[in-house]
Amino acid sequence: MRAVVCHGRHDLRVEPVETTPLAADQVRVAVAFGGICGSDMHYFHRGAVGDFAVRQPLVLGHEISGVVAEVGAAATHLRPGMKAALDPSRPCLTCAYCREGRMNLCADMWFLGSAGRFPHSQGGFSQALTLRMDQIIPVPDDTDLLELSVAEPLSVGLHAVNRAGNLLGKRVIVTGSGPIGLLTARSAALAGAAQVVCTDIEDAPLAIARAHMGATDTVNVARDAARFDDWAAAGGHFDVAFEASGTHAALNSLFPILRKGGKIVQVGMCPPGPAPIPINMLQAREIELLGAFRANGEFRDAVEAIVTRRIDVRPILSGTFPIARAEDAFHQAGDRSRVIKLHIAIQDGAIQEEPTA
Amino acid sequence: MRAVVCHGRHDLRVEPVETTPLAADQVRVAVAFGGICGSDMHYFHRGAVGDFAVRQPLVLGHEISGVVAEVGAAATHLRPGMKAALDPSRPCLTCAYCREGRMNLCADMWFLGSAGRFPHSQGGFSQALTLRMDQIIPVPDDTDLLELSVAEPLSVGLHAVNRAGNLLGKRVIVTGSGPIGLLTARSAALAGAAQVVCTDIEDAPLAIARAHMGATDTVNVARDAARFDDWAAAGGHFDVAFEASGTHAALNSLFPILRKGGKIVQVGMCPPGPAPIPINMLQAREIELLGAFRANGEFRDAVEAIVTRRIDVRPILSGTFPIARAEDAFHQAGDRSRVIKLHIAIQDGAIQEEPTA
Amino acid sequence: MRAVVCHGRHDLRVEPVETTPLAADQVRVAVAFGGICGSDMHYFHRGAVGDFAVRQPLVLGHEISGVVAEVGAAATHLRPGMKAALDPSRPCLTCAYCREGRMNLCADMWFLGSAGRFPHSQGGFSQALTLRMDQIIPVPDDTDLLELSVAEPLSVGLHAVNRAGNLLGKRVIVTGSGPIGLLTARSAALAGAAQVVCTDIEDAPLAIARAHMGATDTVNVARDAARFDDWAAAGGHFDVAFEASGTHAALNSLFPILRKGGKIVQVGMCPPGPAPIPINMLQAREIELLGAFRANGEFRDAVEAIVTRRIDVRPILSGTFPIARAEDAFHQAGDRSRVIKLHIAIQDGAIQEEPTA
Amino acid sequence: MRAVVCHGRHDLRVEPVETTPLAADQVRVAVAFGGICGSDMHYFHRGAVGDFAVRQPLVLGHEISGVVAEVGAAATHLRPGMKAALDPSRPCLTCAYCREGRMNLCADMWFLGSAGRFPHSQGGFSQALTLRMDQIIPVPDDTDLLELSVAEPLSVGLHAVNRAGNLLGKRVIVTGSGPIGLLTARSAALAGAAQVVCTDIEDAPLAIARAHMGATDTVNVARDAARFDDWAAAGGHFDVAFEASGTHAALNSLFPILRKGGKIVQVGMCPPGPAPIPINMLQAREIELLGAFRANGEFRDAVEAIVTRRIDVRPILSGTFPIARAEDAFHQAGDRSRVIKLHIAIQDGAIQEEPTA
Repeated sequence: MRAVVCHGRHDLRVEPVETTPLAADQVRVAVAFGGICGSDMHYFHRGAVGDFAVRQPLVLGHEISGVVAEVGAAATHLRPGMKAALDPSRPCLTCAYCREGRMNLCADMWFLGSAGRFPHSQGGFSQALTLRMDQIIPVPDDTDLLELSVAEPLSVGLHAVNRAGNLLGKRVIVTGSGPIGLLTARSAALAGAAQVVCTDIEDAPLAIARAHMGATDTVNVARDAARFDDWAAAGGHFDVAFEASGTHAALNSLFPILRKGGKIVQVGMCPPGPAPIPINMLQAREIELLGAFRANGEFRDAVEAIVTRRIDVRPILSGTFPIARAEDAFHQAGDRSRVIKLHIAIQDGAIQEEPTA
Repeated sequence: MRAVVCHGRHDLRVEPVETTPLAADQVRVAVAFGGICGSDMHYFHRGAVGDFAVRQPLVLGHEISGVVAEVGAAATHLRPGMKAALDPSRPCLTCAYCREGRMNLCADMWFLGSAGRFPHSQGGFSQALTLRMDQIIPVPDDTDLLELSVAEPLSVGLHAVNRAGNLLGKRVIVTGSGPIGLLTARSAALAGAAQVVCTDIEDAPLAIARAHMGATDTVNVARDAARFDDWAAAGGHFDVAFEASGTHAALNSLFPILRKGGKIVQVGMCPPGPAPIPINMLQAREIELLGAFRANGEFRDAVEAIVTRRIDVRPILSGTFPIARAEDAFHQAGDRSRVIKLHIAIQDGAIQEEPTA
Repeated sequence: MRAVVCHGRHDLRVEPVETTPLAADQVRVAVAFGGICGSDMHYFHRGAVGDFAVRQPLVLGHEISGVVAEVGAAATHLRPGMKAALDPSRPCLTCAYCREGRMNLCADMWFLGSAGRFPHSQGGFSQALTLRMDQIIPVPDDTDLLELSVAEPLSVGLHAVNRAGNLLGKRVIVTGSGPIGLLTARSAALAGAAQVVCTDIEDAPLAIARAHMGATDTVNVARDAARFDDWAAAGGHFDVAFEASGTHAALNSLFPILRKGGKIVQVGMCPPGPAPIPINMLQAREIELLGAFRANGEFRDAVEAIVTRRIDVRPILSGTFPIARAEDAFHQAGDRSRVIKLHIAIQDGAIQEEPTA
Repeated sequence: MRAVVCHGRHDLRVEPVETTPLAADQVRVAVAFGGICGSDMHYFHRGAVGDFAVRQPLVLGHEISGVVAEVGAAATHLRPGMKAALDPSRPCLTCAYCREGRMNLCADMWFLGSAGRFPHSQGGFSQALTLRMDQIIPVPDDTDLLELSVAEPLSVGLHAVNRAGNLLGKRVIVTGSGPIGLLTARSAALAGAAQVVCTDIEDAPLAIARAHMGATDTVNVARDAARFDDWAAAGGHFDVAFEASGTHAALNSLFPILRKGGKIVQVGMCPPGPAPIPINMLQAREIELLGAFRANGEFRDAVEAIVTRRIDVRPILSGTFPIARAEDAFHQAGDRSRVIKLHIAIQDGAIQEEPTA
């Protein structure tokens, strides 16, 4: 049994992991596919995400799907061989946040592949992974496990949308068309937004946004920022904005183009340090700036949307590497002109599909 | 008939104003008292509020009360001699914002005493003021008109509280204990907040906060900022914060002391320019930063609270100057060690009560 | 100029109407098409809707579209010849309800074709109709005016959905598949509901529900009521129910099949008299029973959805009668095995398309 | 160790109970006081509550306070001798309802003293009671344990208020002035309601409502039902109603006196069987009828309010019986002319204070 382990900056190793006996409420899964997330990339390139540095070997990964391998005594609804979506969140269920139904804010969260606590919370790019049984959501046998591994980032998009409330008939803009931006746009379209405008500085993801992810319009802000001036000159155009680029510039560009009373949902993670915002515009126009972090029940919604293909995530699948070539995958994952989302086939022998230009 | 007119920076004149015939839906009032607001002070000291410069003589004032003097044909529910609260907002009632019930965001607002449009919207420090009849809220004959003139700033506090939603049992902090901060604290206490902590850099308003305005605790942040460290070390303490000081420093101090999922309502107006905020903390803790601007139906709530003395505003009344000494009032209004709210007796012959240390 | 006038029970006349000079804020329109609503049917068959009896000749109709014919001085954004959606609601904009943004609850509403006030509020099945200018929503020249006349009932469906809040990923049932039920189902699907189950006692509208109006499943409750038992046995299945049949039986059938905390939106109008409901189930399961009445801003959303065909209303168009045969239309409109929505071509010379089995 | 055990209709016995070894997350408490609730009375007088019949001996009681006696290994924050509020709810924390933060709707709830599941969930009128450690909320040593036992019914009132949302400045009516009605009224007053009208058919609780529980006005509906006609004639007066009498008549009386868009929170439990409601009024006025059941986080809010005496519950304490006279207490508890809330001193040797006229 091997896993993809980060030992520090640019030190990624595929090495054996040990397994332990299952507790009654635990389940062992054979992870099938793992999607590479921006936070995984940060661990690889910087040895840290934000302030959280890798202080011991850390199995990466939290966008995963797999097959049940072994079940604890209490997991009577599961059996080996079942395909399953795998929720990377293991909240404590007892803290004040969990009791308010906001498990994503849990004061004692174990989230797969995170150096945010020590000992680290080991991740999901592992051939044998032990989870608490409520992290296992069984799916029909004919579910595509590669698509299913997108449930986690899709849940983030759905959660961002839920943070904004009812979008029916609303005008929406999403800044940044990486995986989270695109899945947020797709979620906003599913929620009945009347307009969904996506932005980026690359044309490739914008083409996907228009063709497949629900965008009614796109703006390459490297070229066409003047569009923003028009919306601002009209006194604001959008009801809701999702900031998914993780840049201060994009966040600031949103205030003048929002209608009064509009909402900005910050779902992208920005670089460290304070972001300057036009606070008097926020105050006088009663704009709402809302954080969105991971997801809660939206994980199950995402699973259902993928299984039924109400949301077809295939257009953002950019290629799959065998686990032995995990490091290559990490190197290529940053090429935004060709890649939206790269995957690693975690089990030995899985087929490789690399991105093509 | 005279009014308090700003002709530019430090050029305040008490001079005659003309009256025009009433339209059917208009009412003329004899303004009794006018409270001096921070925006009035800005016009006086800088000749401008934010980007809005005085470009023609501007009657100041929007915190007023008075007596009905003359009624238009349609105002059949009003008659001369009635005491009345006077709502400084005259929204268009037809724009998209008004139709959403957010008249405070009206795209065509006439707000008393504002250079925000040209010709300017003349203000309420005037012996004869013409209003649209829905700006007149009659009150019982035994209402104290000086107290009643606080309805407008109280409405701002109530509106800020309503922006935060249900406060029952919540822990609240209010940064800045000027009139708006104190009235917001009082409103939060009225709404059932379990804790209301007020801050300032002066002791005088904090003493009033504790004695009269619902504060369960106060912090002089010039001296005791370490209290904030304790709340931060606990992972956050407050559910809701109201930023009423209009300073970037106070806004920033709030993020670490909020519980996850907490709300910050920005009700104070900051100096021009961008405010740096810890955007990743906002995102990862799902904090909500909400603008609050003026008020809507809360004006009538404020009138009722003052008339019934459910909220007793007398502790913030710092003195009253005759209209002839309006400029003196403006000079003294900025002394925060002695003054919370100064008033001008608009009609000739009213009694002077100056602030005492 | 002629109109379709109800003089009492089964006394429908197509007779001349007079026009009056336009006020500055008024607009005269040539109504193109008028959809027959259930309330129109009640006036025709009973001479009354609920408690509101026809006490003077009443022009019927409120589901209309048309062309601008003549504009008042203030309507500078309109010009003769423009196609337009026509909002049947003329709220006062000044009462407490309007100021809360709930114009549909206006205390002084003029709603087209209603005997709810006296003198009656005359309706829209008229060759020359005078409206307040804000009731006119111009549309592109290539808009189909027959489809556009569905904007009003569609707005009712959208409003019902908005009353329920965010439906993304929710399980929804709609009882009753008349025009309002179908348009509510379509609106719920647009809002991202994961399941939309429609019910009726006729197969014909259920087939349309499945094929065109977003239903993921349908139940003929005259035959398959056992499906409800299964959902009840599971402890409840649906998050939100829309009761659009206007029957007490349907309303009662919803309580056991809702999840705890679920919502029922009553959008259908029931026969007069009290409806028995399982109040202890409502209390102990924290069910919410919410009224939904007409629409507000949803009228504009409906216009946009029809103009862009984000919602294609053509599947519910069952035929169009010339104005001269208005009475025939009223007689046929009640045949639910063949008809969803019948229209009258209001202007002379329009083409007839009768329903076919 | 003895407990108050219901063996069926009018068969109440004070008899020994056994204790079992503590699990790691369990705590044993010496219950000090137990308040008699309406549901306890139903078990006593009918041998059942609603459809839930006593099928095995059932220890009654869920309104309790006490002292920690023995702690399991994991309860490191507790120690014997601590005074504590005792939450009667033990939700599973893992079902879909718990994960939405609605533990009161838990699909697998253990609630003290309930025959709603079999084996029954034994109650709290017991000299030795074992709870899960999260049911224990420690309080300061100087807390009055008799007052503290009111935390549970107060939590129901607070929860009802939270179901209605922000009450600041709202007009509120509460029908029924039993313990729940009075505590709901007090909670609504605390939440800043501008008016709180209480009703009943007895004068005694109305006097308490006015004097101590926040009522601004009261109506004896056996005498003064005409007041309701006035409110109805005005087109509705109240924003929010709490139905706490558990009668169909009171529920029906609320619809005409609510403003359009108003809310009714059903917190009282009605007799079995359907309640007739004016469904067309609910629909056309967009009234919201909301169930309220027990409480969630409000239990801790109630504890804090009692400990700090922000809510003083002493005016509703009608007397305390020794455990040996528990049956007498049950007999007297129904005399609404003299009793609001009766208590049983659970431990031997506690002082008796019987109700006095």
